[in-house]
Amino acid sequence: MAKINSSYQKLQAGYLFPEIGKRVRAFSEANPAAKVIRLGIGDVVLPLPPPIVEALKAGADELGRRETFRGYGPEQGYDFLLEAVAAHYASQGAKVAADEVFVSDGSKCDTANIQEIFGLDNVVAVTDPVYPVYVDTSVMGGRTGAADASGRFPGLVYLPCTAENGFEPALPDKPVDLIYLCSPNNPTGAVMSRAALERWVAYAREREAVILFDAAYEAFIREPGQVHSIYELPGARACAIEFRSFSKTAGFTGTRCATTVVPKELAARNDKGEKVALHALWNRRQTTKFNGVSYPIQRAAAAVFSAPGKAAVDANIAYDMQNAELIREGLEKAGYAVHGGVNAPYIWLEVPGGLTSWQFFDKLLAECHVVGTPGSGFGSCGEGYFRLSAFGLREDVEEAVARIGRGKA
Amino acid sequence: MAKINSSYQKLQAGYLFPEIGKRVRAFSEANPAAKVIRLGIGDVVLPLPPPIVEALKAGADELGRRETFRGYGPEQGYDFLLEAVAAHYASQGAKVAADEVFVSDGSKCDTANIQEIFGLDNVVAVTDPVYPVYVDTSVMGGRTGAADASGRFPGLVYLPCTAENGFEPALPDKPVDLIYLCSPNNPTGAVMSRAALERWVAYAREREAVILFDAAYEAFIREPGQVHSIYELPGARACAIEFRSFSKTAGFTGTRCATTVVPKELAARNDKGEKVALHALWNRRQTTKFNGVSYPIQRAAAAVFSAPGKAAVDANIAYDMQNAELIREGLEKAGYAVHGGVNAPYIWLEVPGGLTSWQFFDKLLAECHVVGTPGSGFGSCGEGYFRLSAFGLREDVEEAVARIGRGKA
Repeated sequence: MAKINSSYQKLQAGYLFPEIGKRVRAFSEANPAAKVIRLGIGDVVLPLPPPIVEALKAGADELGRRETFRGYGPEQGYDFLLEAVAAHYASQGAKVAADEVFVSDGSKCDTANIQEIFGLDNVVAVTDPVYPVYVDTSVMGGRTGAADASGRFPGLVYLPCTAENGFEPALPDKPVDLIYLCSPNNPTGAVMSRAALERWVAYAREREAVILFDAAYEAFIREPGQVHSIYELPGARACAIEFRSFSKTAGFTGTRCATTVVPKELAARNDKGEKVALHALWNRRQTTKFNGVSYPIQRAAAAVFSAPGKAAVDANIAYDMQNAELIREGLEKAGYAVHGGVNAPYIWLEVPGGLTSWQFFDKLLAECHVVGTPGSGFGSCGEGYFRLSAFGLREDVEEAVARIGRGKA
Repeated sequence: MAKINSSYQKLQAGYLFPEIGKRVRAFSEANPAAKVIRLGIGDVVLPLPPPIVEALKAGADELGRRETFRGYGPEQGYDFLLEAVAAHYASQGAKVAADEVFVSDGSKCDTANIQEIFGLDNVVAVTDPVYPVYVDTSVMGGRTGAADASGRFPGLVYLPCTAENGFEPALPDKPVDLIYLCSPNNPTGAVMSRAALERWVAYAREREAVILFDAAYEAFIREPGQVHSIYELPGARACAIEFRSFSKTAGFTGTRCATTVVPKELAARNDKGEKVALHALWNRRQTTKFNGVSYPIQRAAAAVFSAPGKAAVDANIAYDMQNAELIREGLEKAGYAVHGGVNAPYIWLEVPGGLTSWQFFDKLLAECHVVGTPGSGFGSCGEGYFRLSAFGLREDVEEAVARIGRGKA
C-alpha cells in the first residue's frame, strides 16, 4: 500500500499568493470598472533587452543546424556561462572558481533542493519574516513538527527581523546548523550590514554551521560599500553556499536561469564525524537528478554579462529602483513609516492605525485599487507590515502612489 | 554542526557514464588516429526541425516586446502545451485531462522528484537491469541500506529482466508499494506486452501500489497494437503516474522539456490511513519547489504537436529506427544474439564468448573503435549484455555495423 509523505499535510492550507489572487478576483468581479494596480507578487514587467533575445535566438538557431546541434550539456552548465559568472564574482571582489558554479533553472529550486544533501538531524534557522519557500520545503522534507497557532513550525529556529532590530537577524540563542539568510531581503528590502554578516560568518565557522545565502537581489544594491556576495567576507568560502538568480536581475522570471555556488573547501560531517566536501555532494545531486539548463537559455544568460547586455540590464534595474524611490518617497509624504526600497526592489511599510496586514490589504484594494502583499504572509513577525514591489510600469507606479497619497482611487 | 545526508555515501563511487568517458579518453589518447564511433550514452544527433526552432525563436521575440512579455508562468505549464499534450494522449486512446499534466525540464528530474511525495515507509520495486536514476535517487532519499557485493541495495525489490523471461518483469514475490516500470525499456529495448501491463495494473489496484510508468520512448514504438500509454489500460488512472519526455522524441536533450501525468483519482494513504489525492501533493511539490519551464521552450515543445512539427519529428524517429534496424540486422548477421531495437532505439545484445560486459566494452573499443554501454552498468542482471544506441548519424551507424561485422576497425 503506497503511503504519502505525511509531512505535506503539515503545510498551511492557504498559501499566500493564491489567497491574494482570490481576493483580487472577487474585488474585480464586484468592481469591474476599477483599474487594479498590482504591486504584489513581485514579477518583472520590462521585456528582455535585445542583446539577450538575440543570444537566445542564436542559441535556438544553433540547435537547428546539424553542425552546431547540441544534445545533453554538462549538468552543471556550459563553461561559457560558468566562466562569465565567475568573472562577475571576481569583479565584485569575491573569489569563486568557474567549477564551483552550478547553473539551474531557478533559485527557488536550488534553495529548496540544497536541503537534500544535508541530514534531517540539522537544525534549520530562518528569519521571520521570510521567503516562504525555505520554510515550506523544510516542512515537506520532514524537518519540522506540525505548525503551532502562530503558524510557526517546531523544529525550526526563527530569527525575528523587525523595525526594532533594524531588520537584521541576531545570532540565535540555541545552536543551529543550517542558516537561511537573504540579503537584500525579500520581503523587508533590508540589506545586511557587513558587520552583521561578519558576525554570522564567525558564528558559522565556530559552530561548523552552513549559511545558505540567498543573494537573488544583489544587483539592486544602490549604496556603495554594501555586501553583494557573502564571499567578499574572509572565511565565508568555508561556511556558505550562495544563490543568485537572473529572474529579477535580468527579467528572467519566465525565461528561467539561476546559479548556485558551492566552494570547494566547504564541508560538513557525515555520520562517522568525518568531514565531507559539499561540492561533491551537490555535484552528485545535480548530475543524478537534473539534466542542466536549456542551451539557448544559457546563451541568453551569458549575454547578461556582455557589455550591451549588462548596460541594458543595468538600465532596467535603475528603472525599477526609480520606481522604488517613487513609492518610498510617496508613502513617506503620505505619512507612512517606510523601510527598504533603497537597495532592494521591495518597500516594507508599517501598517497604520492598528490594522492587521490583511485588513490593510483589503483596505488598500477597496479604497485605492492597489494590490500589495500582507506582511503576515511571510511570518508572524511580518504582522503589521506590508510589502509593495517596485516591479511595475512607471505610469502604474505613479498612479498607485498618487492614489495612496490621497487615500482613494 | 552541519551534517550531510549520509545516504549519499552509500552510492557507488564509479558512475557508469563517467567511467565510460574515462576509458574512451584513455583509448583515444593512446590511439589518436582511431575514429571512435559513439553509440553509448544515447544522446540525439539530429538537429531540431525548423518548425520547432521557429517556435522557440518566436517565443524569444515575445519576451523581447513589452506587449507580449511574460514573467512567471504557471508552474504546471502553459495551457497551450498542457492541452496539446492531453490531445495527443486522446489520439492514443488514453484519457488524460490537461490539468493532470505537469510540464517540467526533464523526466530524469520528475522520475526522481516524484519520490518526495511518498513516505520513506514505501517499498520500491525496480527492474534489473534498470535506468540508474531510479535506484540512485532511492538511495539518496534514504530508502535503502548500503549496497551488497553485487551492487544491490537492501530495501529495494529487484525484478530481473533477462532473455529467459523475455525481459518482462514478473510480479514480485513480496509486497511492494512503488513500482518503476519503463516501457519501451531503457536499456533492454523491450516493450511490455499489454497482458503484462494488465497484470501489473491489477496487482497495483489490488495492493494499492503506485506504478511509476516511464514512457520516455513511447514514440519509438513501431509495431501496431503495442501500448504507448499505461492509461490505455482500464483502471490504470487509479494506480499509475506516467512520465514522458521530448528529449529523445523530438531531439530535446539539450533543449529540456518533459511531462508528467498525475490522474485526479490517484490516491495513497496518509499516516492515519486516509486516502490523499496525489495530484494535489505533486501540485504542491511543483508550485513550492519549481517555477515552470522557460516560456520559449514550452512554445518549442508545443510545436512538436503541430502538423509540420509532428511530421518532422516522425521523420527523425523513423531515421533513428532505421539505424536500429541496421544495427540489429548487422549484428544478427555477424552471429550475435540481439534483443530490442524494434520498438525502442536501444539494441541489447548478448555478450559472446563468456566475456563480462566490461570486457566486451574494452574489446569493442580496442578492436572496432565502437563505444557502447556495458549491461552490468544497469544492474547485476545486465551482466553479459551490452547496449548500443540507435541515435547516431547514418554513416556512423553503417560504419560501426561494418566494423563489428568484420570484427575490427
